[in-house]
Amino acid sequence: MTTTGAENLTLNIAENATRYRYQMLPEDVVFIAKTCILDWVGVTLAGADEPLTKILLENEREQGGHPQATVVGFGEKLSIQQTTLINGAASHALDYDDVNMQFTGHPTVTVLPAVLALAEQHHASGQQLIESFVAGYETECRIGAAMGQSHYNRGWHATATIGTFGSAAGCGHFMGLSEQKMATALGIAATQAAGLKSQFGTMCKPFHAGKAALNGLLAASLAKKNFTSRADMIECEQGFAETQTDSFNPEKGKGDSDDYRIRENLFKYHAACYLTHSAIEAAAHIHREHQLSPEAITRIQVTVDPNSLRVCNILSPETGLETKFSLRHTAAFALAGIDTAAMNSYSDEHAKDRHLVALRNKVSVETSTARPQTAALVTVETQSGETYESEADVGIARTDLQAQWDQLEAKFHSLVNPICDRSHAADIVACIAALDTLSNTADLTTMLVKK
Amino acid sequence: MTTTGAENLTLNIAENATRYRYQMLPEDVVFIAKTCILDWVGVTLAGADEPLTKILLENEREQGGHPQATVVGFGEKLSIQQTTLINGAASHALDYDDVNMQFTGHPTVTVLPAVLALAEQHHASGQQLIESFVAGYETECRIGAAMGQSHYNRGWHATATIGTFGSAAGCGHFMGLSEQKMATALGIAATQAAGLKSQFGTMCKPFHAGKAALNGLLAASLAKKNFTSRADMIECEQGFAETQTDSFNPEKGKGDSDDYRIRENLFKYHAACYLTHSAIEAAAHIHREHQLSPEAITRIQVTVDPNSLRVCNILSPETGLETKFSLRHTAAFALAGIDTAAMNSYSDEHAKDRHLVALRNKVSVETSTARPQTAALVTVETQSGETYESEADVGIARTDLQAQWDQLEAKFHSLVNPICDRSHAADIVACIAALDTLSNTADLTTMLVKK
Repeated sequence: MTTTGAENLTLNIAENATRYRYQMLPEDVVFIAKTCILDWVGVTLAGADEPLTKILLENEREQGGHPQATVVGFGEKLSIQQTTLINGAASHALDYDDVNMQFTGHPTVTVLPAVLALAEQHHASGQQLIESFVAGYETECRIGAAMGQSHYNRGWHATATIGTFGSAAGCGHFMGLSEQKMATALGIAATQAAGLKSQFGTMCKPFHAGKAALNGLLAASLAKKNFTSRADMIECEQGFAETQTDSFNPEKGKGDSDDYRIRENLFKYHAACYLTHSAIEAAAHIHREHQLSPEAITRIQVTVDPNSLRVCNILSPETGLETKFSLRHTAAFALAGIDTAAMNSYSDEHAKDRHLVALRNKVSVETSTARPQTAALVTVETQSGETYESEADVGIARTDLQAQWDQLEAKFHSLVNPICDRSHAADIVACIAALDTLSNTADLTTMLVKK
Repeated sequence: MTTTGAENLTLNIAENATRYRYQMLPEDVVFIAKTCILDWVGVTLAGADEPLTKILLENEREQGGHPQATVVGFGEKLSIQQTTLINGAASHALDYDDVNMQFTGHPTVTVLPAVLALAEQHHASGQQLIESFVAGYETECRIGAAMGQSHYNRGWHATATIGTFGSAAGCGHFMGLSEQKMATALGIAATQAAGLKSQFGTMCKPFHAGKAALNGLLAASLAKKNFTSRADMIECEQGFAETQTDSFNPEKGKGDSDDYRIRENLFKYHAACYLTHSAIEAAAHIHREHQLSPEAITRIQVTVDPNSLRVCNILSPETGLETKFSLRHTAAFALAGIDTAAMNSYSDEHAKDRHLVALRNKVSVETSTARPQTAALVTVETQSGETYESEADVGIARTDLQAQWDQLEAKFHSLVNPICDRSHAADIVACIAALDTLSNTADLTTMLVKK
């Protein structure tokens, strides 16, 4: 491959991944990491109740395995590999977990399940957990940035593919791999990376997150045991980049270790595909400001980046899951005043509800490249001839970190309180808030049960 | 996707996969299937001794698992998933297993490990094993044929990617999946399919076979338990074909169930990459006929299809494993009279041997599209000014099935006798020869130990 700057990219990223130490992490990075972990635990406890999680658990139970790590929400233990798969899928089941546009993917669900299982098994400290999580997180962002937007646009579910590297790096960091073995782990990850966006709207989407986490753990474990791989699998001829992107830019994968991409982490406040959120927020703004009745609305125009059409433009969703990938239906939710933060809004009943379908049928989705890919413009016309317009962009990371934590703590309780009593949920929050002082991660994971 | 004939391709292939019944299989198909199984057992018992197999076994042992199926060569049992991964990788470790050009891949190593583990777990008959194996085998050939040559040429290791579907179909057949659930299983396979050719020469190549077998088993198991997937994942927009081939031809994936592609199965008689075999056979022919001393040779020209250059053209291999992917080095082996059927010929010592390196340095690899992709022309020039030429094509399946079995029985003994005593090896051969009368597959698998 002759791309400028590609030489030694995998090794460069591997070296960087080995370097993170808790002591060197800036305070805000630790705080954001803890916020990611809080949010992950909430969506995973709630996601444990989803049918897909139960299917995966049943399948792994049939295989048996040593009780090494806790399956979140079930209070039972399976092997670290099995637990990683199940918790990874559970955490993405609601599609309510965090996002990072560096790789157009969900950064936490692929890394945390694996490093958390390892940390529990080895009774590692909260600081070790945080430092390995950050190593995995930063690695997937670097590789995703180097791959560029074409990878996702060509049909790959970046959470699944790029996430595999994140898990491998996080696990490899936890295991203390050398730079060379870390490059091997990234190579074993590269050749397992898989997952297609055309599965959005099926159980395979969350399954991708679990598989990425599992495949990354396997990659690191094998590298540790002297399994071999090319050490340049990202940039080599017919390697990961050449086969799966047209926008490879190796320079974007490089940089100092203190260039923390976790600072661009975006949390979700609506339980639908991230690329529907700006439209939801813009539509909700119009709803709040003008209190239009659905009947009074004659036309709704949602303008988004053209790439969104390949992700979340199911025109006439028939199931609750499909509504999460429907710009038209989610806009209808927002304009009907339905709580888009509540999971149970995305129900099969709501997908078929004739009032919502009538409102959805007024929505036309248009495209424009005038705004950032994450932004949306919503225009609503009424019978009385008025036009309302609102624009939003959820792609900008917040800097009010404590307020962000507070809002996510509220989200955590709204997710967890239906299955845990309030005081137990509060104990979990307190434990994560003090994660940097926790001496044994198992003290956290054993709390992650319905109670 | 607008490709002609693509509509319902996945469903069509799924329907076909459910249909195979032992009673309907032609006699030659059953015989070839048993020959594949014989060859697989030989290469797997020998491959069990390879370091990569031991690493995978150690890693899975650490996870624990119910003793459901036998790890070939070790006499210990792990879960069906774990056993499938390990046996799958072991069987491809020597790169000495069979080939089918319908998908430019190794057909047996991805299907048999999974259906054999299931058959052992469920005490299924030999006939059930054969029928599920054929279902998986035919399915991967159909999908591979539909994907066309571009898939492999673009960098995908088809054994890894297409093989995942083969395993899913074989396992799905064994589980008695409905047509709809079989299409779901193929969908879950599609979104897990991974493996890059740039890993050739590393432990990841055999690992690909094990992962394909495992991922296919997982796909079928999840489909059985009502996991969801698109049912058109091969042909859908941004599906498997659109993202991973430029030569999609759905019609080649269709056809009657009695269009058996296993009849094109090719066995290996040299322990190197298949695309070196024609050159080896042509060079060996010149060696046998003319008994040239290496010193007398001034120039060797190996002419192959240009696609071979991206597969097996390591110019100066430094390890035994790398010599298997070196047209130059394998031609030198043949002209030096070294036994290319013997595994231990492909040693690190031979990679560095100065006589062989000197001979290798006389080899130039040229390309031509005048012959089939599997064929090769070798031209040797000597100091005395003579030129010898020989051509071979190992890409034509044999029709002398009993002679083929006999030759493979000899290969089996040469592989297995160093680790099993002759009478135990003969018992295994006899059991496979009578597989269609075996009432419990576990009676075969428990024999697959070193003894």
